[in-house]
Amino acid sequence: MSEDYHQMWSDLGLNLEAHDALLEGLAQAYREIFLTQEHRPKGMQYFDFVMSEIHGLRVKELLDARENGRKVVGSFCVFVPEEIILAADGISVGLCTGAEFGFAEAEQLLPRNTCSLIKSAFGFKLSGVCPYLEACDMVVGENTCDGKKKAYEMFAPLVRNLFVMDMPQMKTESGRALLKTEYERFLDAMEKLSGKTITSEKLRESTDIVNKKRRAMHRLSKLRAVNPTSISGLDALLINQVFFYDDPARFTDSVNKLCNELEQRVEQKPGVVPHTSPRILISGCPMAVPNWKIPAIVQNANAVIVGEESCVGERGTRNETETDGNNLNALLDNIVDRYFKIYCAIFTPNQSRLEHIKEMVSTYKADGVIHYALQFCQPYQMEAGQIENKLESEGIPVLRIETDYSQEDAGQIRTRVEAFIERITA
Amino acid sequence: MSEDYHQMWSDLGLNLEAHDALLEGLAQAYREIFLTQEHRPKGMQYFDFVMSEIHGLRVKELLDARENGRKVVGSFCVFVPEEIILAADGISVGLCTGAEFGFAEAEQLLPRNTCSLIKSAFGFKLSGVCPYLEACDMVVGENTCDGKKKAYEMFAPLVRNLFVMDMPQMKTESGRALLKTEYERFLDAMEKLSGKTITSEKLRESTDIVNKKRRAMHRLSKLRAVNPTSISGLDALLINQVFFYDDPARFTDSVNKLCNELEQRVEQKPGVVPHTSPRILISGCPMAVPNWKIPAIVQNANAVIVGEESCVGERGTRNETETDGNNLNALLDNIVDRYFKIYCAIFTPNQSRLEHIKEMVSTYKADGVIHYALQFCQPYQMEAGQIENKLESEGIPVLRIETDYSQEDAGQIRTRVEAFIERITA
Repeated sequence: MSEDYHQMWSDLGLNLEAHDALLEGLAQAYREIFLTQEHRPKGMQYFDFVMSEIHGLRVKELLDARENGRKVVGSFCVFVPEEIILAADGISVGLCTGAEFGFAEAEQLLPRNTCSLIKSAFGFKLSGVCPYLEACDMVVGENTCDGKKKAYEMFAPLVRNLFVMDMPQMKTESGRALLKTEYERFLDAMEKLSGKTITSEKLRESTDIVNKKRRAMHRLSKLRAVNPTSISGLDALLINQVFFYDDPARFTDSVNKLCNELEQRVEQKPGVVPHTSPRILISGCPMAVPNWKIPAIVQNANAVIVGEESCVGERGTRNETETDGNNLNALLDNIVDRYFKIYCAIFTPNQSRLEHIKEMVSTYKADGVIHYALQFCQPYQMEAGQIENKLESEGIPVLRIETDYSQEDAGQIRTRVEAFIERITA
Repeated sequence: MSEDYHQMWSDLGLNLEAHDALLEGLAQAYREIFLTQEHRPKGMQYFDFVMSEIHGLRVKELLDARENGRKVVGSFCVFVPEEIILAADGISVGLCTGAEFGFAEAEQLLPRNTCSLIKSAFGFKLSGVCPYLEACDMVVGENTCDGKKKAYEMFAPLVRNLFVMDMPQMKTESGRALLKTEYERFLDAMEKLSGKTITSEKLRESTDIVNKKRRAMHRLSKLRAVNPTSISGLDALLINQVFFYDDPARFTDSVNKLCNELEQRVEQKPGVVPHTSPRILISGCPMAVPNWKIPAIVQNANAVIVGEESCVGERGTRNETETDGNNLNALLDNIVDRYFKIYCAIFTPNQSRLEHIKEMVSTYKADGVIHYALQFCQPYQMEAGQIENKLESEGIPVLRIETDYSQEDAGQIRTRVEAFIERITA
């Protein structure tokens, strides 16, 4: 890290000892997993820098922005529309989860049968190691799965200002109406929080900013479709993860610069891996920093991940928000339309997810799909079997993995991944 | 059983061998748990008869009614309004669950981390042992918890005609509007299924029938508030369970006759147990036939259960539906109002549940609360800790039990229940 941020962390009320331990573990994992990769694009240096400063410079930027009157809004879900946050001159940040940290404390509040993502979010809070959470003016929760919906009841007394959005469960007219109502309520809450009026001009501008960010991701995805692939699965996942933390314009610029480089690589060949490397699509639960367990295993098995059908991935970044419409209501309708297409497993039925997985397999020329579900994540666990059956019946090999944030099952997963890769290359 | 129903079961497509085994196990458990109780009211003979004929005479009645043009509608949830089913001259029945039967088959489709209630419903279907399900013209599912919501996706291809109702997650205006839309859709579906028009007269009549059934249950509950109690917890639970199967008018009549007898008992004293018996309120997940594990353990520990804060209990039966209003829409609004009060743990926040538990503790003079959650039932597991903390902080002792439908943990639960009873009588 370029500076000593201990004073800042202390001012935020972090537990410095625990936080140092967390950062040390994170830095070590990053070195071992990311910096040991060969043939990395130069453009990844920016993301290496972001990661090295993830609890430092970026948090300082947020605090400086707050000094200048901007509001910081944290969330855990791709259903929280960044367009609305930016339109009120706010800053959207993803909150900490993804590591087995503070689980003992979390299990004082949560049932043991709770998924790692939720336990981790509580663990970070209860052990005082998430500077983003402490720097937030508002935290936005959402009634997606039962686990999160009920967990927010217990999270509310722990954080400064929790705003919970209700969520539909079906893609019906009523479902869309509910999402619209909730986004209207959120827009009002953002106006109140910021003291600023969200005009149609501002909303169009902010939508444009978020679209540009998405478009850069689409460009990156398209480049990954070329064989041999010019970027590793781990690096691409990392960019998808940084998507939630970084300043949108700077992030967009950095992804586009990287894509310029990758385009050259695609012309010149060869890629980061030989063109014979088995190509894997990952599908399922989101992987937040530093949840790199499965991608690292896949990569060590000499396969290459070419796409993430995930909230931290294409499920989250696909589809732009339309910007036509000359009043606030029309622009908000565009936002609702865009987010209502997200086919999270909380919806029933959820046929679009299966369709998109098949489309991704075809677009990215994947040889097989690894379905990743967090233990106790009922929605994705319940879809896993259905998806496996349907893909396999169409000749697409599937490996189903259920795991948590621990490393205990890494050996067992490695064996299964290796066997799967043997199967699809046989 | 009074007759040999094998031909009927065979015609329904049941697996006769498995079904015989199920009924034999059920009869034995019933004899051991219910018929060995002392000082039982005479009025329980009716319910003993119903139970002895639960897969026999009652199923024959349903099939006879179908012959006469009535439709049979099965469901798994107290949010399915019997008023609407009856108004279309239909018959509402609760579907089979509550036993660890066919779990191996169920786990072919469902994740192992699925609650016993859902696994059991699948197990009954997949092993062909639920005559109710096979006698149904329509099965109604509902998007309550994630587990059920996603499980219905896999249940749909297994049953004749599945109608899934969406459900709200918050007690907001939008939430109520969604419930209304869904009940309207259900009313239409019932009209189509039955070929009969639901008039306001019919809906008022059917509402009256269901209200009478509820009123009989309220009368029974009130009698259980008297110390010494005149009916065992197991017998009262049984009546709450039969509530979902029996003909409404006959059931109402039988409960009222039993209450007449209990009123006399209350006057004459003593009750089924000494007035010094510790009084327990059960709170949590529903207990369907033959899920009598915990009540039997409590009763064997010489405590008496005086109320069930459960869907199979007062959460399901409290509150009548208003019958004022002179058109269909007004009557439907009454129904929506009544069901929208149900404080299932799928709602967030769910403060009403805590309030009602406290009210029940006071009304039924309970000495302690046993909170019962099925393993992997996230909504009730997530509320368990919150409820325990709040009740204990107000001096109400709570024992939290998490279990499934197996008997494996019966010994361990017995030890914990005995220790709890010792604690509250100390």
